[in-house]
Amino acid sequence: MKAVCVCNGSISDYDLIKKYIQESDYIISVDGGAGHLRKMGINPDILIGDFDSANSQDLDYYLRKGINVSKFPVEKDMTDSELAIEKILELGATEVVFLGALGTRIDHSFANIMLLKKMLDIGLRGSIADEHNELYMFDSNFSISKKEGRKLSLIPITEKVTGVSTRGLKYPLVNATMVLGTSWGISNEFEEEVAFVSIDSGILLACLSRD
Amino acid sequence: MKAVCVCNGSISDYDLIKKYIQESDYIISVDGGAGHLRKMGINPDILIGDFDSANSQDLDYYLRKGINVSKFPVEKDMTDSELAIEKILELGATEVVFLGALGTRIDHSFANIMLLKKMLDIGLRGSIADEHNELYMFDSNFSISKKEGRKLSLIPITEKVTGVSTRGLKYPLVNATMVLGTSWGISNEFEEEVAFVSIDSGILLACLSRD
Repeated sequence: MKAVCVCNGSISDYDLIKKYIQESDYIISVDGGAGHLRKMGINPDILIGDFDSANSQDLDYYLRKGINVSKFPVEKDMTDSELAIEKILELGATEVVFLGALGTRIDHSFANIMLLKKMLDIGLRGSIADEHNELYMFDSNFSISKKEGRKLSLIPITEKVTGVSTRGLKYPLVNATMVLGTSWGISNEFEEEVAFVSIDSGILLACLSRD
Repeated sequence: MKAVCVCNGSISDYDLIKKYIQESDYIISVDGGAGHLRKMGINPDILIGDFDSANSQDLDYYLRKGINVSKFPVEKDMTDSELAIEKILELGATEVVFLGALGTRIDHSFANIMLLKKMLDIGLRGSIADEHNELYMFDSNFSISKKEGRKLSLIPITEKVTGVSTRGLKYPLVNATMVLGTSWGISNEFEEEVAFVSIDSGILLACLSRD
């Protein structure tokens, strides 16, 4: 089962974002994400969060519609996004896309990207998408399909990622060691319909990005 | 000596950004960053990059003014931002602020944040700033001054950050172990004018952020 979490970050093009929601079996509104869903005319299956960033009119709107609510205290040790992961597991979903997870608050954006590591650890296939990017995290071999107009960036998350080899990309890597804090893997280009990346050890962030 | 690098990412409020430039001894225009500088009416000391993202009119404008140019090939193993670090070292600067380093291309934003790790390793005091965030990276004890309306987020960059203790923050940490991929350290609040953070091992990203 596939879930989608709609968070409070920036969403500028609802038409582009809607397709991720349409492909999902379960829609979770995370705190202020309720505003985005209401503008799209979509009812979530559940509203979760501490609701410090949610507009009370959006909340009331969905409460009147009988949507379930799971409320957390404002003073807690996790962000609403991380708490959403617990809910996704409860639902039995095996895959989740986070929308509205990136925005002007870089601390939140960065922490949300790092939550992909938590999802990787617990075996949940997580990704983050916005109008310009799709982000995935991998600790073993993976393939990724070409998307027109998008480049593929491979960024180390661990101190080292060893044995990195690629197939189907313009600038191939052959048994390379990638080190945290270098920009080597940025803006590679697809030469085939699918790119294959193998890894011996470490974790890579893969970004399918367009300008 | 303090340098500033102006890159091609998003800058929406030039008045807020200008103050970082005014505090610097040396202004480096990184590729398409030339467009931002021209709009602010500021002459850089040098233009660097492969100039694939720069507007040729902006380049010509500065060339006619006699500004030095350092051009790199488009097909290279580093981003223009990483190449800028080499230039900063050549100049003998000990501190640098990157502006226009964050934007819609999350792969570039994320890689730029991770370049703070490279700067930390080589002893260059690096930071990234935009209208909403100031980002720093630390592998030892540090202090950070309160900024009105801003929260302080502490995010682990290494698998573990051990012995984290804080003073001057609303939600104190005492000899805590922070793990990559959790959102525990997000949105702490200042209770005093300066926050002190001590670390036994590992690396923290510190974000001074406002909505």
